[in-house]
Amino acid sequence: MKRNSKVSTAVIRRLPRYYRHLAELQKKGVVRISSGALGKSMGLTASQIRQDLFCFGEFGQQGYGYNVDVLREEIGNILGVNRGHTIVVVGAGNLGKALMGNFKFSHIGFRLAAAFDINEKTVGTTIAGTPVYHEDQLEGFVRSHHVDVGLLAVPRPVAQSVADKLVNAGVKGIWNFTNQELFLPGHEDVIVESVHFSESLLALSYMISQEEDEEKGAQE
Amino acid sequence: MKRNSKVSTAVIRRLPRYYRHLAELQKKGVVRISSGALGKSMGLTASQIRQDLFCFGEFGQQGYGYNVDVLREEIGNILGVNRGHTIVVVGAGNLGKALMGNFKFSHIGFRLAAAFDINEKTVGTTIAGTPVYHEDQLEGFVRSHHVDVGLLAVPRPVAQSVADKLVNAGVKGIWNFTNQELFLPGHEDVIVESVHFSESLLALSYMISQEEDEEKGAQE
Repeated sequence: MKRNSKVSTAVIRRLPRYYRHLAELQKKGVVRISSGALGKSMGLTASQIRQDLFCFGEFGQQGYGYNVDVLREEIGNILGVNRGHTIVVVGAGNLGKALMGNFKFSHIGFRLAAAFDINEKTVGTTIAGTPVYHEDQLEGFVRSHHVDVGLLAVPRPVAQSVADKLVNAGVKGIWNFTNQELFLPGHEDVIVESVHFSESLLALSYMISQEEDEEKGAQE
Repeated sequence: MKRNSKVSTAVIRRLPRYYRHLAELQKKGVVRISSGALGKSMGLTASQIRQDLFCFGEFGQQGYGYNVDVLREEIGNILGVNRGHTIVVVGAGNLGKALMGNFKFSHIGFRLAAAFDINEKTVGTTIAGTPVYHEDQLEGFVRSHHVDVGLLAVPRPVAQSVADKLVNAGVKGIWNFTNQELFLPGHEDVIVESVHFSESLLALSYMISQEEDEEKGAQE
């Protein structure tokens, strides 16, 4: 497949949204969709959609729109869902447990191999079918199982030291839920994807503030 | 303050990132920063930063850069952190507990007033200092306390019905962690901000896949 290696961050961020929206269309039984209709459901213009997808090759046929199944599969391949990536959870506290119990890792191509913690009550148990090992075993496990990604859900004060262990053991990426900025000198090739809940709530705060101002304006 | 009401979604999404980055600069003791340096630390160009902030009025002084404290406070005001918004958590399972225990609502101007659940073991307790009430009391509490936002962390099958209760009781926004698309007919003014963990992990999946391909290419 033709690929443009200079894909912008904005496009990369939109691809997972396409993937999710196309799944919703599949559920509704939609077989074919125009760039206009797809754009409308996602709050994008038709031309933005055509441009985004053009970065990765030609998917649609002029005047016929996109086949939903084919487009979703192609986007999935671009996102790497067919690569059998492996992930481990580090930190099986409330957040780790919530993700293990509710997040469908396999739906986006990840195999959840194990979890690690230091709490004696949790070590040796299984959570939603996944075994929890002691954190002492983390590096050995990551090395022997060629784990691709470490999900970091440990308390913030130990985030950096656990991240160091993960990269020394060879992970390619860290999915960081700790809200701690990580420094990984000598491992610039390791991708850190941080989930910042505050950014989401602040966007909501902005939008409700705008509405408050509009209402106030309308009353005056 | 001058404001452009046609602010794009992309700019709105970047404002919380500015707010977070400026806090990090404050921690490091940085007093003044150029748009170039601020951009570099955030992966944006200087002109993008100037354009973004121009949407909300003039903050910097040509050639002098931005005062970090002032800029952060101004952006905070735009985001509504000074408005005393109130939030309640609905669903005090693992995810709800994790957010109540670790997320600093007050740091971004929210007052966490209460949590609601149906589990008898949880109702009547406090989590990280916040009381947990029975979900039967949700609508009455939201009405009498003029709650602005409901954090939805209930199981997916009941997400829609709990969301209906929240909007009927008058919330302005829903912070939705259920991965369930919500339909709120007749309440188009209510803002729904959904956290989709899968989009974040898929972006990480894409980036590690790109690195795999590059390594493979280099070996061939």
